[in-house]
Amino acid sequence: MSDMLNRSLLPILRPESVAVIGASDTPSRIGGRPIHSMKTMGYTGRIHPVNPRRETVQGLPAFASIRDVPEPVDCALVAVPAAIAVGAIRDCAECGVKSAVVFTSGFAEQGEDGAVAQREIARIARDSGMRIVGPNCLGVFAMDSGWYGTFTNAPAMIERPPGPVGIVSQSGAYGSHVLIVAQKRGVGANYWVTTGNECDVEIGEVIDFFVDSPEVGIVVAYAEGIRDAARLRQALGKARDARKPVIFMKVGRTGEGARAAASHTASLAGSDAVYEALFRQYGVYRAGTTEELVDIAYACQYGSYPAGRRVALQTISGGVGVQMADDAVRYGLEVAPLPQPVQARLKTLIPFAGTHNPVDFTAQALNEPDLMLKNIGLTIEEAEYDSHIVFMTTVPATPFMKEPCADLFRTVRERWPGVPMIMSLVGGRDVVEAYEKLGYPVFEDPSLAVRALAALTRFGEAFGRGAGRAPPEPPAGMLPVPAAPAGERDALAVLASAGIPVVGASLAATPDEAVAAAAALGGPCALKIASPDILHKTEIGGVLLNVEGDTAVADGARTLLRRAAERAPEARVDGVLVSGMVAGGVETVLGAVCDPVFGPAVMFGLGGVFVEALEDVSFRLAPFGVDEAHRMIGEIRGRAVLDGVRGAPPADLDALADALARLSVFAAANAGRIESVDINPFIALPEGGVAADALIVPQAG
Amino acid sequence: MSDMLNRSLLPILRPESVAVIGASDTPSRIGGRPIHSMKTMGYTGRIHPVNPRRETVQGLPAFASIRDVPEPVDCALVAVPAAIAVGAIRDCAECGVKSAVVFTSGFAEQGEDGAVAQREIARIARDSGMRIVGPNCLGVFAMDSGWYGTFTNAPAMIERPPGPVGIVSQSGAYGSHVLIVAQKRGVGANYWVTTGNECDVEIGEVIDFFVDSPEVGIVVAYAEGIRDAARLRQALGKARDARKPVIFMKVGRTGEGARAAASHTASLAGSDAVYEALFRQYGVYRAGTTEELVDIAYACQYGSYPAGRRVALQTISGGVGVQMADDAVRYGLEVAPLPQPVQARLKTLIPFAGTHNPVDFTAQALNEPDLMLKNIGLTIEEAEYDSHIVFMTTVPATPFMKEPCADLFRTVRERWPGVPMIMSLVGGRDVVEAYEKLGYPVFEDPSLAVRALAALTRFGEAFGRGAGRAPPEPPAGMLPVPAAPAGERDALAVLASAGIPVVGASLAATPDEAVAAAAALGGPCALKIASPDILHKTEIGGVLLNVEGDTAVADGARTLLRRAAERAPEARVDGVLVSGMVAGGVETVLGAVCDPVFGPAVMFGLGGVFVEALEDVSFRLAPFGVDEAHRMIGEIRGRAVLDGVRGAPPADLDALADALARLSVFAAANAGRIESVDINPFIALPEGGVAADALIVPQAG
Repeated sequence: MSDMLNRSLLPILRPESVAVIGASDTPSRIGGRPIHSMKTMGYTGRIHPVNPRRETVQGLPAFASIRDVPEPVDCALVAVPAAIAVGAIRDCAECGVKSAVVFTSGFAEQGEDGAVAQREIARIARDSGMRIVGPNCLGVFAMDSGWYGTFTNAPAMIERPPGPVGIVSQSGAYGSHVLIVAQKRGVGANYWVTTGNECDVEIGEVIDFFVDSPEVGIVVAYAEGIRDAARLRQALGKARDARKPVIFMKVGRTGEGARAAASHTASLAGSDAVYEALFRQYGVYRAGTTEELVDIAYACQYGSYPAGRRVALQTISGGVGVQMADDAVRYGLEVAPLPQPVQARLKTLIPFAGTHNPVDFTAQALNEPDLMLKNIGLTIEEAEYDSHIVFMTTVPATPFMKEPCADLFRTVRERWPGVPMIMSLVGGRDVVEAYEKLGYPVFEDPSLAVRALAALTRFGEAFGRGAGRAPPEPPAGMLPVPAAPAGERDALAVLASAGIPVVGASLAATPDEAVAAAAALGGPCALKIASPDILHKTEIGGVLLNVEGDTAVADGARTLLRRAAERAPEARVDGVLVSGMVAGGVETVLGAVCDPVFGPAVMFGLGGVFVEALEDVSFRLAPFGVDEAHRMIGEIRGRAVLDGVRGAPPADLDALADALARLSVFAAANAGRIESVDINPFIALPEGGVAADALIVPQAG
Repeated sequence: MSDMLNRSLLPILRPESVAVIGASDTPSRIGGRPIHSMKTMGYTGRIHPVNPRRETVQGLPAFASIRDVPEPVDCALVAVPAAIAVGAIRDCAECGVKSAVVFTSGFAEQGEDGAVAQREIARIARDSGMRIVGPNCLGVFAMDSGWYGTFTNAPAMIERPPGPVGIVSQSGAYGSHVLIVAQKRGVGANYWVTTGNECDVEIGEVIDFFVDSPEVGIVVAYAEGIRDAARLRQALGKARDARKPVIFMKVGRTGEGARAAASHTASLAGSDAVYEALFRQYGVYRAGTTEELVDIAYACQYGSYPAGRRVALQTISGGVGVQMADDAVRYGLEVAPLPQPVQARLKTLIPFAGTHNPVDFTAQALNEPDLMLKNIGLTIEEAEYDSHIVFMTTVPATPFMKEPCADLFRTVRERWPGVPMIMSLVGGRDVVEAYEKLGYPVFEDPSLAVRALAALTRFGEAFGRGAGRAPPEPPAGMLPVPAAPAGERDALAVLASAGIPVVGASLAATPDEAVAAAAALGGPCALKIASPDILHKTEIGGVLLNVEGDTAVADGARTLLRRAAERAPEARVDGVLVSGMVAGGVETVLGAVCDPVFGPAVMFGLGGVFVEALEDVSFRLAPFGVDEAHRMIGEIRGRAVLDGVRGAPPADLDALADALARLSVFAAANAGRIESVDINPFIALPEGGVAADALIVPQAG
């Protein structure tokens, strides 16, 4: 397997020889700080300062040009002004330097002139094969080797030994910030990569490299926009399959945020709903705050991902038990009650304990810590929980309780070493570290403990399910996307060829033909004006529903033809579409769009106001299989409607999922050709489902 | 004014003489710890241990009985077992002790026997006038006087001087927890009250006392259930009028949580939607986590509540600027752009800065801190913002930047002392405290800084608006609540008498009368079966809409009468109700319920699936005026529907608010008589609105 590992960033992250272009003798300057950091932090490779005006730099022999460096260089740090940076980078490429990290700013982030220069750098990378990080980045480092190719002062604030976290951030300032906050939280990082303007190395490739690096077990990522979506998807899928959690902060969720992102870097900001889809699809945890990002990474360090959602809550405060139960439900965990016989046994141990789940030790446990051990043991051994949280407030830091409490939880770890268990306690750093050493993630706030456990559980589920069932095969004879926007009849025909069930319908040129068509269908029918030029039929009163009987059908057809002539006199009219009425069911909307970054994506929502007023929809990137489709159906807030409200029977979710998966396959097969597909409504029936109307808009030429 | 202040808890919170019933010589025991705490922490009053088996306790002369204490006692701490506690409490009352704090557990929280004993304690309080805190509580304290009437060991962990926060918690364990977490966060508390089972003193009275105490500026409260709702409402209204923020954690939001609450204390858990209504109505901040509770109290310590929602974001990291902008929108703040001329001036200062808002200083500001001062000054002086957040990451803790940065922000405070401004920075405690001393609330996490600022802003708004317009006067001649459940006709008549517009309708006994009634209304009409026994008419097919023309009306009436005879043969049938069709508008639901704790409450939602599948409704406690009604309308997720979707005109929100306020007045006037009122639908029209159907259910028996 090892020959299949991604080693493309080895020269950048594990260089044996580095050059510093624009090296400075002053440790606080941009060209001086990396040298100073490497010298003080034990870099074991060779450092070659390049500075035409100095013999030595910080005690090292300096060279006038990269061409004078007497050995092959793995990585060059470029710390010269924008005006001469492109030339310096070209020199590096010509000398066979394997990679460059470009600190220099003044490129695509500062307008068109800068963008031109940046494209030139990208071209050098492409032509020479020299890999380039940046420009406009804060650099990279690998703590375990003392390699500090960065001019941030963050390395001076590192206080933790190297750990299993790899950090990649498009923003250098944020990358430094999250590193230091992580240090304070007890999170050990090793690799740190800021990608800046990403003219060559992008965040997806860095994640991919991390996944293949045995030193990295957890990925922390920050992005404002993504350039190479396929690369990112591939890396995220690989991370999931390798059981390496990815915790991602993607900013620009709202209008204001996205605007600030656009003005900050030269990012392509895809629509947030599509990012959300990406993260859900690949089991990535999206953090909303830095605290959350770091908290989840912290919890992941213990490497214990629950197999399911059933959590046992144990607490020394009943009130906090209630709060944790609230939180657990909010975060999607299951607070299942203890089996009755176990509750009965707990009651014999502590008569006044709450035993249902949460289990409330009560203050009595303080007098007899052994009772807590018995409580915890019973909960672990006699019930089927996937994970545990124990809330101890300040007890583990309290003079008389400190020792017995530590003994108790040491015993718990010894007896049940594999059980996922988080501690919530309040104490000084010494107390926290003592429990961490025993193998417990420690959270001061019980609600944040629940949030972290829910994240671990979601990772456990994502690792367990993997990619899920494959997308269905595209049917033979799938029709092409129409060349012009196509409404009901043509659109449904195309979708039917893609394997999506559609309502039966026939075109009637005259009222008499409509009567005949209705008679052939039997029962009440729907009449709709048929015209390639009238895509929004209701706006001209072009739809009549539930029409029954020859006279009514003939009258209706005449009415529609008259309205079309009056209200859309320019439109070509083919006649009237006669289709069966679908009785009952739930109106849903299935859609596909082509995201400028991620390509075809499929949307699901309930009809009408759910989509329009509530924006209650979920997305997935195409193509996907029915497992993923079921998950996207489950994400909408109004999903209870599908279970049946007011005594209605539940909708056939398998049929709905199948239609979504098939639409995703159609969209993926037509990437670049479709602008959008709307199946509105797709009527989800108690058995099966049917597309009753649709609109396909091809991409403009 | 001072004679109107609530001083009812003075003997409990500012006692000059205390007795400890069950005093122990051992400082770690329940009866020993309060004495130990008071002695070591400088209590200035007199302490009288009561213990029949000892001459002295912890060096103080002990008495065999409370009766032997030679002076009037303000507060007795009761630390004896449940079996003798009631007698001890009775003795205290008989001796004229002014108040008692009962630590003893084993009362209502442990079943019916305990509840009986607790009722006896309550009776003693009522009969004697002696105020009682507890039973089953951890006690009370007032730090500034060294009064520690508590057996928690939390006092030993206090590291901050007394501050403006008053803490009241039903749970003793949680009260201790939040105190210590608050200490760690830099929040100074003074009063701390745990109310336990609340046989006499309840959380509402404690808040009321806090509001009237000059030592308290901020109230932190924790509750699992409320007993005296009126008292709590009065206290919360008073806090708002006194501009004292109340930050509340109410647990038991979800089914699991509420169940745990019920098993933990003998609380009456009102429905969570009604608590949510209470908090919104009175401008209370509901915290979801302890971290949030403490963070908001921390920010309130600076006493600066923005007058509006416009926030200026300044940042040294563009990425964090995006994140803060996202957060600000999520928390309801407005990230309005800087005026163009100001942006132009900023551009001349830092050419590459983001100037829109967020303002991105960029790293250049690190070289010239003076630029940041100019940036901040322009944003304060030349634009109309209500508040500011400045994100500095680790810069204020960085060796070369530490001094200039502190100078800069000292200058900002001196020049613009009143401006609400939060700092987000990462540094050690010394750095954080230096900025706190300058008057800046400090948050490590920028997202949590935004959350806190949003909370301050919500307090500012609530303080500014006060109680809002009063509820409308009940109209003269308002009809009484029907004695039995009443459907459309009778219910609408009652609601019309309460000033709510209702649809015109008349009762037709025969098809002919229906034709005449329809002709009198003109246009299409609705026909509905009229029977006091058929409350859900659609279930028997008893509603026909949009009926027009004499034949159709007569046919329709006959159909309804036949269906009633066939499908509800037992029902008394009055005939057919003929009412005008309301064209257009948005279907909404107005409801009233009687909450077991808080009494009448009014609900608002959109019709159909919005209420049923999404539970997208908002509540308010009755009665209220139109301002409050407008706010509850604004809270539903689907509110965009009221603004008009698909080209529909916006609904008349004033008319809707008026109907809600009038319904609230009706519900309040009939507290105890109504079980529920449903106006479904109330059709909100472009001008006005009309109740089209209703159901009033009186309270049983």
